[in-house]
Amino acid sequence: MPEEQKETEVVRLAHGSGGEAMGRLIRELILPRFDNPLLHALGDSAVFELPPGARLAFTTDSYVVDPVFFPGGDIGYLAVCGTVNDLAMAGARPLYLSAGLIVEEGLPMTDLERVLDSMARAAGLAGVQIVAGDTKVVARGAADKIFINTAGVGLVREGVSLGPERCRAGDAVLVSGPVGSHGIAVMAARQDFGLETGLTSDVAPLAGQVQALLEACPGVRVMRDPTRGGLAGVLTEIAAAAGLGVELREAAVPGKEAVRGACEILGFDPLFIANEGVFAAVVPAADSEIAVGALKQAGAAEAAWIGRLSGEDPGTVSVETVVGGRRIVVPLGDELLPRIC
Amino acid sequence: MPEEQKETEVVRLAHGSGGEAMGRLIRELILPRFDNPLLHALGDSAVFELPPGARLAFTTDSYVVDPVFFPGGDIGYLAVCGTVNDLAMAGARPLYLSAGLIVEEGLPMTDLERVLDSMARAAGLAGVQIVAGDTKVVARGAADKIFINTAGVGLVREGVSLGPERCRAGDAVLVSGPVGSHGIAVMAARQDFGLETGLTSDVAPLAGQVQALLEACPGVRVMRDPTRGGLAGVLTEIAAAAGLGVELREAAVPGKEAVRGACEILGFDPLFIANEGVFAAVVPAADSEIAVGALKQAGAAEAAWIGRLSGEDPGTVSVETVVGGRRIVVPLGDELLPRIC
Repeated sequence: MPEEQKETEVVRLAHGSGGEAMGRLIRELILPRFDNPLLHALGDSAVFELPPGARLAFTTDSYVVDPVFFPGGDIGYLAVCGTVNDLAMAGARPLYLSAGLIVEEGLPMTDLERVLDSMARAAGLAGVQIVAGDTKVVARGAADKIFINTAGVGLVREGVSLGPERCRAGDAVLVSGPVGSHGIAVMAARQDFGLETGLTSDVAPLAGQVQALLEACPGVRVMRDPTRGGLAGVLTEIAAAAGLGVELREAAVPGKEAVRGACEILGFDPLFIANEGVFAAVVPAADSEIAVGALKQAGAAEAAWIGRLSGEDPGTVSVETVVGGRRIVVPLGDELLPRIC
Repeated sequence: MPEEQKETEVVRLAHGSGGEAMGRLIRELILPRFDNPLLHALGDSAVFELPPGARLAFTTDSYVVDPVFFPGGDIGYLAVCGTVNDLAMAGARPLYLSAGLIVEEGLPMTDLERVLDSMARAAGLAGVQIVAGDTKVVARGAADKIFINTAGVGLVREGVSLGPERCRAGDAVLVSGPVGSHGIAVMAARQDFGLETGLTSDVAPLAGQVQALLEACPGVRVMRDPTRGGLAGVLTEIAAAAGLGVELREAAVPGKEAVRGACEILGFDPLFIANEGVFAAVVPAADSEIAVGALKQAGAAEAAWIGRLSGEDPGTVSVETVVGGRRIVVPLGDELLPRIC
């Protein structure tokens, strides 16, 4: 391949310089994929109107997943789904996203295009528009391929009021699908683990399932998506904020055989493995069946009741042991799984 | 210093793991500096109400400035001011910011604290709250010390309507202060340039000056803050979007002697150097004096009329030459100044 042609096929520092090369990158790679009137204006901010009395949800996450491409997704798909899901957890209909890219000089342009394609596909699926963006390029070795930050705004559905403080002893704890697929799929994709699981990440936008749940069961207390720290992590946070204990029936927690197998080999607990396409919800006990039914109808085939809140051991998550006792799940203390999101 | 003590004084991978160490970082370093009811909830999204009929501005930028600490500011101060200023350029009163940190393992904890202190100070000065955040830690060598993304939302002032399409031939072009200080101060702080200028960055929140300008001169056509690409960059963008030419009187553009001197040594044009505390505005010719006066009263002592829009050479910026002719300013084509923001 001639040297000249090669040069045009990687991201160069000039693509972040604010000059002509950056202008071309925006016009040729970014706008065609995300075009919408708000983004097209290319001003310093996107400006939009909101319905009267709107309550807005606002959130952000940076994505540094390694590898950038993994079975079932990539950093672009993840960056859109993750922020859409954080909005959905607040009971909001996701509306607009911003995207901030930090790219390492030398990234193949085809990799950048693949990532942008995935962002566009995820945004389309989730019904959001990317209306503001920023691209920085840093020299080789100053970042690892590509990092993406997304921030998002969404409209909180009327009448919806969520928060751990609304939880009561006796409430049911649900999860919308099998846990641990994302974390294990990403780890398996790393050469240094040498695992072959056949697993794919569960990364997906959750706004549809959340909407179905809220319509069937307006009394939902709180929802959280168990990314870093896994299901045990978010349930511990809910327990602490609610001043209640979470009692899990471990056998009821859905999980794939391949995840369980990999966790046994690596010495992990699936309850701590990151997810990107399932969420946990607390609902009044009486709504438990309706809620699980609504989730299943919305495509969450393995949604399940997995436990309940209690007044005992506030701030902790416990699981039944095989001999009928309970064991408290101890929060993560140290680096377990860096760069899974 | 004992080994154990040393270990607690740098950011470790565990601080981004979603476990106990991350919880402590958030409780001990982040919340005390930024505490507000929205952030304190620590949910997946911050939720807030907006006045009826509100028009919202939404923007994002990632900051990768090198070095992290430079004369006149640091990456934290810059990350808050930069996004506040992008909102101000849309005619919005900045309300809420999100912050996404990507930290390299091994960053001294005192550096992180300094950066967080600067973010809090800038937020206080700009009257915004940081209501959503995210921290990722990557292994040594996978990022360069710290990158920060901020996204922001603001309320567009009633009756304000801005955009390059509102520009007319004959309009006046203003700038709020001397150009080039940020870019040159950052470059001079890099060891590899070996420049001693005594310059400090101009980084500052601009919302106050913008408010004063809009109150004195509601007919403002468009405002832009000339960061990457400098004053020439944003004026070229305005010219292209307006289908007009920008005719600058180069001698009228305010600039510090040290900036001019450094530019001569390095072969740069101050018109292309990044700024973080000045902005350009286009106003109807008849409002030019009122506008400059309002800016001066609001603290922009060197605000100045620097040129006008014309129907000639649409899409270009030209400057007067000493012999009375005009020379077209050619946009940046290649990497000039990476990582100045």
